[in-house]
Amino acid sequence: MKALYFDGEKAVYREDYPKPEAAPGHSLIRVLVSAICNTDREVLRGYRPNFRGVLGHEFVGIVEQSDDPALVGKRVVGELNEGCGECIYCRTGREKHCISRKVIGMEGLDGTFEEYFVLANHLIHVVPDSLPAEQAIFTEPLAAALEIPNQLHIRPELNVAVIGDGRLALMITEVLSLYGVDLTVIGKHPEKLKRFQPYAKTERSPEDTYEVVIDATGSPSGIELAKNIVRKRGTIVMKSTYAGDVQLDLSYFVVNEITIMGSRCGPFEPALELLNKKLVQLPPIELWDLRDYEQAFASHAFKTGFRFT
Amino acid sequence: MKALYFDGEKAVYREDYPKPEAAPGHSLIRVLVSAICNTDREVLRGYRPNFRGVLGHEFVGIVEQSDDPALVGKRVVGELNEGCGECIYCRTGREKHCISRKVIGMEGLDGTFEEYFVLANHLIHVVPDSLPAEQAIFTEPLAAALEIPNQLHIRPELNVAVIGDGRLALMITEVLSLYGVDLTVIGKHPEKLKRFQPYAKTERSPEDTYEVVIDATGSPSGIELAKNIVRKRGTIVMKSTYAGDVQLDLSYFVVNEITIMGSRCGPFEPALELLNKKLVQLPPIELWDLRDYEQAFASHAFKTGFRFT
Repeated sequence: MKALYFDGEKAVYREDYPKPEAAPGHSLIRVLVSAICNTDREVLRGYRPNFRGVLGHEFVGIVEQSDDPALVGKRVVGELNEGCGECIYCRTGREKHCISRKVIGMEGLDGTFEEYFVLANHLIHVVPDSLPAEQAIFTEPLAAALEIPNQLHIRPELNVAVIGDGRLALMITEVLSLYGVDLTVIGKHPEKLKRFQPYAKTERSPEDTYEVVIDATGSPSGIELAKNIVRKRGTIVMKSTYAGDVQLDLSYFVVNEITIMGSRCGPFEPALELLNKKLVQLPPIELWDLRDYEQAFASHAFKTGFRFT
Repeated sequence: MKALYFDGEKAVYREDYPKPEAAPGHSLIRVLVSAICNTDREVLRGYRPNFRGVLGHEFVGIVEQSDDPALVGKRVVGELNEGCGECIYCRTGREKHCISRKVIGMEGLDGTFEEYFVLANHLIHVVPDSLPAEQAIFTEPLAAALEIPNQLHIRPELNVAVIGDGRLALMITEVLSLYGVDLTVIGKHPEKLKRFQPYAKTERSPEDTYEVVIDATGSPSGIELAKNIVRKRGTIVMKSTYAGDVQLDLSYFVVNEITIMGSRCGPFEPALELLNKKLVQLPPIELWDLRDYEQAFASHAFKTGFRFT
């Protein structure tokens, strides 16, 4: 079958990749649509030096085989982290933090840039019939945005700034716009910021400060700007990952009692709920044939992916 | 009157310092006992280059004059930060974070190493009659420890590590030992750690991890150790201030969803409540005459201060 394989150095398009078989507790899923995430690009840049396998983890598919009869034939999305089931994190509802976890498309498990792949049943979520695959494909990035209110009490009275104008910032802005907060988006690219109206306020004053600041820049400059605009006793939510250390004046955060909160993957069911209720404005997704993967990865479209037929 | 004055370079003992007068909304307080805090030492080391005035902020005194009749003649302790009353922080219960605040013994206001000083009425707390001055003097450092449960929900089921074996670590340990948590103190000095029994566990394994880790080391090494022993999705509370930046791999905190929470001064009334109920084991305090300030500052006693007669 067709698959986009990472050989440790580069992506390789193959048509002879063996179709997998589902182990007990797992389902065989036929992929309909799979989207490119920045993490896939990072794997290609060497972010996971020990990984060998099929790339990709954002998908919509149909369960073809499963030992859970409730899943067979269903259109589904799925979470990427499969824990050991036994460690302190798996036993306390933190499977995605399991130290020996496997991650589809990144660590020990083939990903979703292929016609069929295998996923643990408990990571699978059924997509409502009324939700098209081109929208359901945003479940995973929307869940990452929902992790913010999952970790931090977002009171409607708060004023919140989102730093960044990329895909993740857009998902976060869409989610927080539902919470009643006074929302401001701060970005560098006027063209991209058009998507964030009316939150990309141009009349922002350098004196404006925010109770919550969310860094979704993906760059080390985000935390420094966040530090400058967050209120004393406020919270900075960090969604950005990047290589290398950052220099920080930690005493500033102590004296001003500022909280820095790391935030990663989030809950799928609330994301499906928001999508199905059409509460989130989605950007268009550009879909390619898997063999055109080089164009797909190079595209400047806001979101790109692959369609399997 | 007697006062220990900071002239911008050093402490100067004076007997000719003018007795202050209380402005409206303020009280004149006769000092009984005043304790040395590390911050006083930092002022002497240049931490507040623009401050000129009397040092000190931990005190027990008697209100001699006040336009609040409920305070006159009372034995009291008091908070150190006097806000402008008008900014966003003063209007939202964060007076101690007021950008134009004055701070006794540090910023714009004479401190408590003198026979009489002046404090805003709303910062004054009456000491219960049954609480001796040598114990009430611990109100301010105990309040700083109580700021931790004031900011973070300390559930009894949590396991918590305190890093540090100094005065602040001792206050934090005393407070958290009341919360039912599984508590571990990690320090470098076997002699000091004796004060922390039974929490200075010697059988700690390098694999032990904690949901909450409190850095009270006062040194940049604290955050690195905290990072290594905090659980994924756990919280590091930073109580340490020190000069200079720290290098941090922030992506580690994002991927592992770790929260870093800065924490400073805390609530006085709960501190007085715990002290009055004898729920906190206090170290002895060594009291000196103000003119012996050099010996007091140089002393290796766990806590030192001045007695005014």
